[in-house]
This record gives sequence, C-alpha cells and structure tokens, in this order.
Amino acid sequence: MERLLPQIQSPEQLKALDKKQLPQLARELREQIVTTVAANGGHLGSSLGVVELTIALHRVFSSPADKILWDVGHQAYAHKLLTGRQEQFPTLRQWQGLSGFPKRKESVHDVFDVGHSSTSVSAALGMAVAGDILGADDRIVAVIGDGSLTAGMAFEALNHAGHLKQKMVVILNDNEMSISRNVGALSSFMSRKMTSDTFIRFKKETETLLNYIPGIGRDLVGIAKRAEESLKSFMTPGMLFEGFGFDYFGPLDGHNLEDLMETLKNAAQIKGPVLLHILTKKGKGYEPAEKNPAKFHGIGPFDPQTGEVPAPAAATPPSYTEVFGRTLVDLAATDQRIVAITAAMAEGTGLKPFSQTYPQRFYDVGIAEQHAVTFAAGLAARGLRPVVAIYSTFMQRAFDQVLHDVCLQNLPVTLALDRGGLVGADGPTHHGAFDLSFLRSIPNLIVAAPRDEYQLQRLMKTALSVDGPFAYRYPRGKGTGTLLPEEIEPVAIGQSELLREGPDGLLIAIGSMVQQALAAAEQLATEGIDLGVLDARFIKPLDRDRMIALAENAPFVMTVEENVLQGGFGSAVLEMFSDVGLQVPVIRIGIPDRFIEQGSQAQLYDSLGLNAEHMATRIRKLVKLEERHQSAG
Amino acid sequence: MERLLPQIQSPEQLKALDKKQLPQLARELREQIVTTVAANGGHLGSSLGVVELTIALHRVFSSPADKILWDVGHQAYAHKLLTGRQEQFPTLRQWQGLSGFPKRKESVHDVFDVGHSSTSVSAALGMAVAGDILGADDRIVAVIGDGSLTAGMAFEALNHAGHLKQKMVVILNDNEMSISRNVGALSSFMSRKMTSDTFIRFKKETETLLNYIPGIGRDLVGIAKRAEESLKSFMTPGMLFEGFGFDYFGPLDGHNLEDLMETLKNAAQIKGPVLLHILTKKGKGYEPAEKNPAKFHGIGPFDPQTGEVPAPAAATPPSYTEVFGRTLVDLAATDQRIVAITAAMAEGTGLKPFSQTYPQRFYDVGIAEQHAVTFAAGLAARGLRPVVAIYSTFMQRAFDQVLHDVCLQNLPVTLALDRGGLVGADGPTHHGAFDLSFLRSIPNLIVAAPRDEYQLQRLMKTALSVDGPFAYRYPRGKGTGTLLPEEIEPVAIGQSELLREGPDGLLIAIGSMVQQALAAAEQLATEGIDLGVLDARFIKPLDRDRMIALAENAPFVMTVEENVLQGGFGSAVLEMFSDVGLQVPVIRIGIPDRFIEQGSQAQLYDSLGLNAEHMATRIRKLVKLEERHQSAG
Repeated sequence: MERLLPQIQSPEQLKALDKKQLPQLARELREQIVTTVAANGGHLGSSLGVVELTIALHRVFSSPADKILWDVGHQAYAHKLLTGRQEQFPTLRQWQGLSGFPKRKESVHDVFDVGHSSTSVSAALGMAVAGDILGADDRIVAVIGDGSLTAGMAFEALNHAGHLKQKMVVILNDNEMSISRNVGALSSFMSRKMTSDTFIRFKKETETLLNYIPGIGRDLVGIAKRAEESLKSFMTPGMLFEGFGFDYFGPLDGHNLEDLMETLKNAAQIKGPVLLHILTKKGKGYEPAEKNPAKFHGIGPFDPQTGEVPAPAAATPPSYTEVFGRTLVDLAATDQRIVAITAAMAEGTGLKPFSQTYPQRFYDVGIAEQHAVTFAAGLAARGLRPVVAIYSTFMQRAFDQVLHDVCLQNLPVTLALDRGGLVGADGPTHHGAFDLSFLRSIPNLIVAAPRDEYQLQRLMKTALSVDGPFAYRYPRGKGTGTLLPEEIEPVAIGQSELLREGPDGLLIAIGSMVQQALAAAEQLATEGIDLGVLDARFIKPLDRDRMIALAENAPFVMTVEENVLQGGFGSAVLEMFSDVGLQVPVIRIGIPDRFIEQGSQAQLYDSLGLNAEHMATRIRKLVKLEERHQSAG
Repeated sequence: MERLLPQIQSPEQLKALDKKQLPQLARELREQIVTTVAANGGHLGSSLGVVELTIALHRVFSSPADKILWDVGHQAYAHKLLTGRQEQFPTLRQWQGLSGFPKRKESVHDVFDVGHSSTSVSAALGMAVAGDILGADDRIVAVIGDGSLTAGMAFEALNHAGHLKQKMVVILNDNEMSISRNVGALSSFMSRKMTSDTFIRFKKETETLLNYIPGIGRDLVGIAKRAEESLKSFMTPGMLFEGFGFDYFGPLDGHNLEDLMETLKNAAQIKGPVLLHILTKKGKGYEPAEKNPAKFHGIGPFDPQTGEVPAPAAATPPSYTEVFGRTLVDLAATDQRIVAITAAMAEGTGLKPFSQTYPQRFYDVGIAEQHAVTFAAGLAARGLRPVVAIYSTFMQRAFDQVLHDVCLQNLPVTLALDRGGLVGADGPTHHGAFDLSFLRSIPNLIVAAPRDEYQLQRLMKTALSVDGPFAYRYPRGKGTGTLLPEEIEPVAIGQSELLREGPDGLLIAIGSMVQQALAAAEQLATEGIDLGVLDARFIKPLDRDRMIALAENAPFVMTVEENVLQGGFGSAVLEMFSDVGLQVPVIRIGIPDRFIEQGSQAQLYDSLGLNAEHMATRIRKLVKLEERHQSAG
C-alpha cells in the first residue's frame, strides 16, 4: 500500500485525506515514532497515546491560526510529523536536530515552548484572552495529561479560566498514568467513571429521598443535606470541572477518531471554557510499550522489534542516581528519621528501591514540587529527616518553598538535586544549570556537589548529621566507577580536598567538573605545567582559609563548574577573594549566559569548553601569557 | 467588670474559664488587637475575623502538643495573645518586637513560620504524617483562608492529603474576601450555598428524570448524563472537598463559639482528613473594618475611635507604587498592547486605577503567581505587552515560570517587582532581598532598578520598547519627590548614569541605594574626599565599557545594593572586572547572608550599614588606609 505520511507536509494536506485513510495514517505515524525513538531514545508512550488525538485536532482545527498547546510537550511527536517536519524527524533530540518538545523557533505550529508540566492551561488562557483583545477569531486548545493536573499551577489556571468564562478548549488526556504511578486523591476522583450501577444506586437513593418531600413541616435544608450525602457517591470528573466553570464533555475513547472529531467540532462551538475528557492508552499500538508504560515513558535506544534495551557493558559503573537510591536505603536502615519524598519521579530519582523497602517512609506527592518541599519542612519540624529528591530543573518550581519553609526556619531538610548540570537530549528545559546560583543566595543553606559516587555518599551521610538544611546536586549519568567502601565517612562542613599540588596555577573545581580539571592538570603536567587542583566540594560555605592560602601563592586561579557563570560557584570564589582584598587573576569556566541547546552531554561539554581538553588549551595560553609578562617585566 | 485577658497566659488557663465568660474574652481580645494595630499598623481585618475560631481552637485542642498552623499567619494576633505574649504584644511588628506572623523562635505554640500564603496544608500534612511515624497521638489543624485556596500549592496538598487519607483537620476560613476581591471560579463554587430554592429545582428535575426510568430499552448511561446535567446546579463546596477525599463539615457560622467548639470536637474524632468550612467576617466587631475590609486588611497606624488614617503631610512625595500605577495608565492610553496583571494585589501594586480605566485589559488572577507569569507569557506570545506587577518576595514563587515560560522564549513580558529590598515591619518573609540575584542568573532577561520615580517611569517606557523580557524592581515607600516631566524619555539598554565625578574612589550603586551613595559622596566632598558616583541603572546588562573605564582610574570601587551580597549586583560587577582582568579593590555593600528581621526601613538600613552615614564612615577608613599605603610605598 502506498504510504500516506510522506504526502502530509502540512495540516492542510491532512484535511484533504479521505476519512477512511486516517487509520492507516495513524499506523504510519506510530511506525515512524517507534523507529525514531528506538534509534534516538525519547518519550515513546505518551506520543503513541495521542496519535488519534493529534490527527483529530489537525483535522478539526486550523493550525497555525488556531493554536494547539501541548502540556509538557513530550507527546508532540505526531504533531511534529504532521506539521512539515518529517525529514528532520530522524534527528529528534539530537545535537542540532529537532527538539523533543515544541519549540517556537522550529515551526509556526509550535506556539509555546514547553518542557516542565502544567503550563498549558495558563499559556492557552493568555492566548485566548489575547485573541479577544486583538479581535482574532481563532481557537485555542490546550492538551494536558492527568498527571500534569496534580500540579497546582494547572488549578490556578482552571480557576482563572472558569472565572473569566473564556472561550477555550482544554483536553484532559487521561491515561491514568503520569510519569510513574498516578498520585493523589484527584486521580481516584477522576476514575469514578459513570456506570449504570452507580446510576441505579442514585435512582434508589433519590426515590427514597423524594418520598420525604410530601411530609409537611419537613426541614428542606436537612433533607438537602441528606441528598448531598447520597450524591457524594455520584461524583464524576465532570462535576469537578463544572465546579470550575467549564463545560464538560466525556469521558471519550481517545483512540476513536470519528468520535474525537465530532466531539471536538462541537466543543469548538461553545462560547465559554470547555473541558474534553478523553481516555487514552500510553504506548497504544506498540505492544512492549502498552505492557510496560513506565519503561517506555522516557527511554534510551532500544530494539524496535522486541522492545529490548541493549544490556549495558558489564563494567559500566552505576549512575549517580542508582548510588543515591541504594545509599539512602542503607542509611535508612539505621536512621529511623529518614523519610524520602519524590514529586512523581520515583524511578527517575532512584527512589524505587527505597519505596519498596520502606513503603511507610516513602511519599510520592505527584507533580507538585512546591508541596513536596513544604511537606518535607513539616516533617522536619517534628524531628524527622526528610530527603527530597527532585531534579535540579524541577527544583526551580520550589524556590520560594526552599527559601521560606525550609531555610528561613533552618529546618533539617535534605535537598537531593539529581540531573545538576547539562542533561543532554532533553535540552534547555531540562538542564540543571541554575541551581548553584539560586541555592547559594539563600541564607542557612549548605550547598555541596560531589566529584564522584563515593563523595555523593559522604555528602548524603554528612547532610543527615547537620541540624539545618543541606542541598547536594549531582549529575545525570554514570558515575566514575570509584570504589564504594563499606563504611561511609562523613566530611566536615565546608571542607575542600586538595587533589593535586603544583605551583603554576590553581584549579578550583566543583562536582562533575573536578574530574575534568584533574585530567587537564595531569595532561599539562606531562608538558611541564604543574597545577594545583582543589575539589571545593562545598559551594556554601566555601573552604575560605584554605582557598585563600592556596590562591595567594598561585599565579592564577581557574574555577570550573557545571552551572551558569552568573552568580554561580566562580562568582562565590570572586566574592570571597574580593572580601579579603586578595588580588589574583581568576578565570571562571562554566555555562555561559544563554540557554543551552540539546545534544549528547559530551557534545555539549565540548561546545562549551567544559572538558579537560578545552581547559588545558585555555591554561596553556594563560601560562604563556604569564611567562611573557614575566620575561617582559 | 474585671478583665479576663490578663488572666490568660496559656491555653490551659483559657480552658479553665467558664464557657459563659468566653464572649467577654472575645471582646477583650478585639479591643487589644485594635489598640495595638492602631498604634503599630498591621493586619487588622483577618485577625479580628478569627477571634472566636482562635478561642475555640485553644479550648478544643491542646497546643503545643496539638499543632495549630495559621496559613499566611497575619491572622494569628489572637493566638499570640492567648499563648503567653500579652506583655510583648504592644511591640507587635516593631524592631526587635513580636512578629506579625507566627515564629517558631517566639513560642512553642507557633509551630511553623509563615508569611507567604497557602503553605499550611502542606506543612500540616507533613506534621501529621510525622506524628504517625513517631507514634505521637496529637492532632494537627491547618487554618486557611478562601483566598489562599486559589494558590495551586494548596490544591497540591489537599490532593496528597486525600490520597493518604491522613488524619488532620483543615479549617477553611471563608470570609469571601481575600486581600483584594475574591478571584476565580472557585469562589463562586464556594458560595453556592445550599438553599431550599436549589433543592426544589433539584427535586423537580430529578422527578422528570425518574419518569424516564420505566421506559424499556432506555439507555441508562444517556439518562445518567442528563442526571448529571441536572445536578450541576446542585454542586456544593462540600462536594469539591469530598472529591479530594476529605470529610466535609459546614458551612458554619465562624462567630458562634458554641457551634465551633462542638463541631471542632467532632471533627477531631474523625480518622481521616476533615475539612471544616466556616464563614467569618473580616474586621468583625470593629465597625470601620467591617465596613471597609480592604482598607483594614493591612494598615498603618490609625485612630482607633474613628478608624481614620492621619492624612500625610501635604508635601509628601508619591510612593513608587503610586507612580507605577499612574504611569501605566498613561502609557496604556497610547499603547493598546499593554495588559496589566496582578496576583490578588490590585491595591498593593497600585493597579487599582488601571483596573478602573481599562477593565478589559486588567487581570487579577488570584494568589497565583505561577499562573500569572505564564498567563502573561501566553499574552506576549500573541504580540501583547503584559506587565506583571508582583512584589519581589512573591515573585520567588514564579522563578521557574519566569525562567522557562518568559525568558527561554524571549517573550516581551514586563516584570514589575514592587517592594524590592527591605520592606520594614512585615519582616523576613516579605523583604525583597533576593530578586537581583535570582533574576540576573536568567539568560535573555534585562534587569534594572530606578533611583527615583522619574527613573522608574523611564524604565517602564523602555521596557515596552524592548522585544524581550524586562524586569525592574523598585522599593517600598515614598519616592524622592523628583520632578515628573510631561514627556517620559526612555533610556538606552544597559546605560548607566554618572552622577558625580571624583578621583578618590568610585561608588557604583543601584536602585534605592543610589541616593544614599550620592549623599555619602556629598558629605565626604566637604571633607576633601572626592568620589565618583555612578548609577548603574541596569544590573543586566551592565554598562561594561564605562564601568571598566571609570574603575581603571579609581583607587577603589564600592558597589551598593539593597539585595543579598551572594550573587547580587556587586557580584556581577566583580564578574565583569574579573572577566577583563581588571584588578581593582572592590568593596561590596548590601544585605548580608542571613535573614533580616523586622523593623522600620530606617532601622534596618542603619543596622545593616545601608545608609549614607555608614557608607561615609567606611569610605573614610578606606581612604585613610590608601593614604597610609601610599605614604609607606
């Protein structure tokens, strides 16, 4: 059969297809998505789940005049394929390739950049309101998953949209599974689907109730109260959204194209806010993903035939995430105060083993970073030792809670920031590039970063011994393979470690960059340039006396960090030197003042000069310059 | 009659009172609160509204074993008076006096520090969970206002608490008025109180519906859908919370002590989460506040007899807030793209006139800073020019949204941060001490601060001319009284202004501190020390070339800012000098690395060395040191 997908280079062409051809198109989209994700890795399950929805949306609405906003955005692969990006699609998530998320720069059909969850209703409401102000006659659609609805921001937006009675369509894509399991009372609320059983009970109860009515002198309010009781069991998801002022349609089979298109047409006619509740299956149409949706949510390359992920080489060191998860289980065995908290990322943060070993001390709060941190503060206020594991990029959502609810009260909450630094293919919305800057501005907070897995373990143990807030951040990916001794030795707060002595310059590195600095120094040593390398270990407090003493005797200091240069670690070093009046040339290496694109971590480090080679080159130049100065002077 | 209040130094003594004495105690509490707030200023309305609730809570529960959490916390005055702090109460909100908010350091009865809204359910849930883990048999109560419920964080917590079926009591204090008017669909939802009218309509509709039942072959699901339709109008606030898994009691008269105590007793018995919905009146018992709740929400000193606020001295300059509000109205007259957004602070941010002049271009989103910023991003993505006015301290809640939804997409959103710097009596939770640090770490964002009202106007106009994100922050309180010309002249991006030349040192100041730096320089000029003073105006981008040129010829540079020193403005200057290899002594003046207490702004500036006098003293020492060096060298 002739393939249809290559003929669709725009939504216009999709509209020209015969309705009967659409199921074939859906199959082809799925094939393309599976093929590409199997090669590049990516978010498979959610993109497969919305293939029919994507076709229906582009048939009913007219993008880019009408605007379709994808919450989180990792489910937009079919959208990309239908909006003129088939040729580039094999570059998905690669260096200089297509983004794994909608990007305004990539296409006029991508109307809002996303990456973090639960922003779509807010942005769509803004666009809808703007449409009214501008007198535009276009339609705005936000597609949001049930998981994203656990974030408070989505509620703020629903509340405001209902209040404004703003014309817009919100599609609730209910696959009953956010990133890990679905969390929260809300999800049980949602799943109370209307059944005839429920209706029959309702009928019986209201009949009984109505029998009261003729009774003279009955207190109507009292009866109404009983009526309310009897209705509780009758709650449907629709009533929640109606409560917010939305017209509610659904639940609807999200894989039935005919129904979807018809309902979308109707929904688009309504003058106020509409919520269309559809039921989809994650991984739909690809059996391995249907069977194991958690595995295929975000996945690396795999065999498209079997769904098997190639086994890692035998000697591969464990990831920081794994070491974190395992170590927390061990620490919790002897420290009953430890409670672990995740925001819908039990797998991603390595807390799965903890959740299995200590289910009664494990809390998945849903996509709710703000609540996660303040919930932890509440636990800590009573003497427990909560460890909140949140990716660096998502911790941005809880800045105020870290500041006020944890640090202002000096509560012993541990913030474990995974994916600190550049994360690779997920790109600018997922890099953990800002944490050292925003965390170190906060009083009372200790901030550290380990150079290897064992140092992570040491920081974990140290954090639990401190009677105040403590944050450590560690990178995405494999560790260095360092030996993990039986007994973990804590470190003294603020203590750095001198890894190498040398008179020709001092490298002060932090976290993931320590190994690179060391490698650069070792390379340069073979060339006769002998550098000191200090692992700062703490961004706050800095190992003041030692750093100053070492710097006083160094011809230059180079700071190295995987964080933005503005207000980051190097900036803290500058502040320290300036405060004591120490005049020494400082070269700061880090992430520059722009958003960093996607690519493999190695490509990104290379492009930004964040590896041993680039450092060595830079130092060679510096040393030559020094020498010239000296011979001239 | 003998006064009761002086006899109550602890909740135990309150419990010993005869029930009949409680109304008198309530009156005395109100008198004390009015007297003190009339003298010191403070949050009057909300504290008067919960007098009965506070008495009831401390009668039914046993603080501090049982834990009472006050959301926002500005309604805790009666709580403070009943928990051993009567003597200090006249020092409320004063330098080294009682805080206007609960503070753990102040009393064992204050179990969680607050200031920002909507944290109470999260923290209470943490404490309740901790209680279970620790095997403690205590009870946890959170008191949250209907306004605070518009913040998504509260929903995150309700969702989690319902999911856990955690024993705890949440009291919804519904005064149908958050800080300004109540916002959002939710509030209309809440106020759909059950009436007999509604019930009668319900009866009629269900009767009609039930008539269908005998019909053979009827589709029950179809009927159920109609039943649902008929029930929409029957929604009650209880159903919302039941949907989240809470047992719901209410609504209840929050000023009826007997009812409150009885219901609280019952609620405390329930094994799962309970929501008790009470109705109170802001300002209850003090007529001026009952009549004008917005005025008495947060108020300065007033005449307790009349409620009159003393008129300001005739020549008082307008506040920055006023100038901002007025100027935005003027700018919007000729620029149709301007839309103004506030998060429940129309009065506080000066947007009231705008809301009256351009109601169709004004949006109050409720206490929902995250949504506010992303909503603005949606507006900007369609070519409008949203101006989001949020206090500096509350913008911390929207850090991730500023970063991702505005700056990553380089959208022309203006962030107007009022109350940048030290705010005075509201203390550590309200100081805007971090914004320069966290904003300047974000790529694409222009960050500026005006030294006077006219400079604010210029920045406002400039921001609208830039095709990207722009933040300006200005201080709480009166302006300098500078002349406001008819025509506002924009400034070039990144351009500083040299206010004074002098060879003996260079002061680079930003925002509110420019006037202080200038005053210090002028004082020192009379002593023969001749300093340059540069108004940086922009934190980002810095006026690089000029600053370097001036610094190269200066014996020292002093930076002055009303922001934390970690990663702040001075830190940006250090980075710039370091990057070009400029070696010049830099002294950074700003807010030190600790949370700053409450007090008048003048007291705080004085205590932190942030005024002309302290700067002059410091410079004198420096210059002497320089001279000694020179004469020695």
